[in-house]
Amino acid sequence: MRFVGDVTAPGAPTFVPPDDRIAVFDNDGTLWAEQPRYFQFEFMLEQVKAAAPKHPEWRDSAAFRALASKDPNAIAAVGHKAILELVVRANSGMTVGEYDETIRRWLASARHPRFQRPYTDLVYAPMQELLAYLRANGFRTFIVSGGSVEFMRPWAEKAYGIPPEQVIGSQQDVEYRMKDGNPVLVRAQRIAFVDDGPGKPIGIYRSIGKRPILAFGNSDGDWQMFQVTAAGDGPRFVGIVHHTDAEREFSYDRASRVGKLDKAWDDAVAKGWTIVDMKADWKRIFPWEP
Amino acid sequence: MRFVGDVTAPGAPTFVPPDDRIAVFDNDGTLWAEQPRYFQFEFMLEQVKAAAPKHPEWRDSAAFRALASKDPNAIAAVGHKAILELVVRANSGMTVGEYDETIRRWLASARHPRFQRPYTDLVYAPMQELLAYLRANGFRTFIVSGGSVEFMRPWAEKAYGIPPEQVIGSQQDVEYRMKDGNPVLVRAQRIAFVDDGPGKPIGIYRSIGKRPILAFGNSDGDWQMFQVTAAGDGPRFVGIVHHTDAEREFSYDRASRVGKLDKAWDDAVAKGWTIVDMKADWKRIFPWEP
Repeated sequence: MRFVGDVTAPGAPTFVPPDDRIAVFDNDGTLWAEQPRYFQFEFMLEQVKAAAPKHPEWRDSAAFRALASKDPNAIAAVGHKAILELVVRANSGMTVGEYDETIRRWLASARHPRFQRPYTDLVYAPMQELLAYLRANGFRTFIVSGGSVEFMRPWAEKAYGIPPEQVIGSQQDVEYRMKDGNPVLVRAQRIAFVDDGPGKPIGIYRSIGKRPILAFGNSDGDWQMFQVTAAGDGPRFVGIVHHTDAEREFSYDRASRVGKLDKAWDDAVAKGWTIVDMKADWKRIFPWEP
Repeated sequence: MRFVGDVTAPGAPTFVPPDDRIAVFDNDGTLWAEQPRYFQFEFMLEQVKAAAPKHPEWRDSAAFRALASKDPNAIAAVGHKAILELVVRANSGMTVGEYDETIRRWLASARHPRFQRPYTDLVYAPMQELLAYLRANGFRTFIVSGGSVEFMRPWAEKAYGIPPEQVIGSQQDVEYRMKDGNPVLVRAQRIAFVDDGPGKPIGIYRSIGKRPILAFGNSDGDWQMFQVTAAGDGPRFVGIVHHTDAEREFSYDRASRVGKLDKAWDDAVAKGWTIVDMKADWKRIFPWEP
């Protein structure tokens, strides 16, 4: 609130015009939960399973077996790239409309293994409040996520008040084609952009074209986004959600495979960035809690 | 105005909620002039000339000689790809801040060969009015241009009221690096995305994630954007600026090398899209006219 007061005080040396009040937020682990596995991972696993009958060659694939096992060590052993190739193969050839339908269907039916609720229930209430508070003070709010834009856009507007064009994420290539006399976009077998780590400032540059004055994240995947935000002139705010509440949510940081917070943590301590201790600082975590 | 009335009439079957009122505009030849050569071409030529002393190998390059001659036939003979490679080489290695400076300096000093005015004076007053009118009716307005985002963002907000994140265009790759302890983005020797022809609906999908209900353009480079806009459900508006006024601006269509309007014209006639006859329909073309 002090930072927002500084940048909105007319005539103050810290004043930032509304046009430049750009705020960026990681999604997984920052705006909603990400444990025990990234939610999009569960969706992609379903997609790959559904496509498996059309790909008998996968039966002998180490990547497919690792993915189906959900064993993080097996998945780590075959590597991120091999897994991603399966995922891309599973959904390539679909139109973007068909793909969108598969995501909406999954979101409507899937349940989180621990909370037994739709994944979209696992957004963080204090972050929803923060987003609304920033917009009420003239900020434009963006998601900048390693997840894919298609997976976030169907629900980000309702959950966070963030419209599709302010959702920046990883992207698979699409191709323009005519199909039965209608123009369609079809998913291609190529990753176009990975919006993670150094990709985040690149995604921000490409899609926003301005340096944010506020960035919020929770892991090393946000580190470069933090650095670019902090390196600008004038008032800057970098915030980190620290997962400290194993009882109400999850507790993890340096040693976690999902949402590892290590280098960015050291930098946050060195530079005095703001760290949110979920257990101590958040009265409520999810919107449905009493 | 009838279309805007239809989509904003509460309770009407043609009503479109504000969230879905997406309007996309080509830039060159639609929002500002593009003759006798794309304005960005003039800038790129300056950049290549400025970089030439560092590239003695260019002296024997047919592409460089063609570009320097400004002769459209010579340029066509060496091909778009060879020219683009020179341009990409000329500015790669610059930080995005340095590159932005070269654009701003050029825009401040360069003059249009015929009108002897800054290029940014050559925006179309009726289109400025249209953009403001649409926004006043709950539309979100986007530029979707074959030109590069960097070339438009410095002035699009002032000229059109369109902020940087609503400018979609072609993109050269950038890389994240640390330079003297500061994070910077450096231009790489690769084109990341060409936002022209079939690239336009792809750019719209990536950056907006919704199908527009209104599209305005002036050439075959906008054809696929028109098709995708027209193919949606409910009320649709496709508009084409037809350059018919050689006296006040320029007159060209099917036979022009710059802004060729041929296939999209045939489709517009067949489908009853709206064609603006600049000479007959626009009382004023540029904002500085009496």
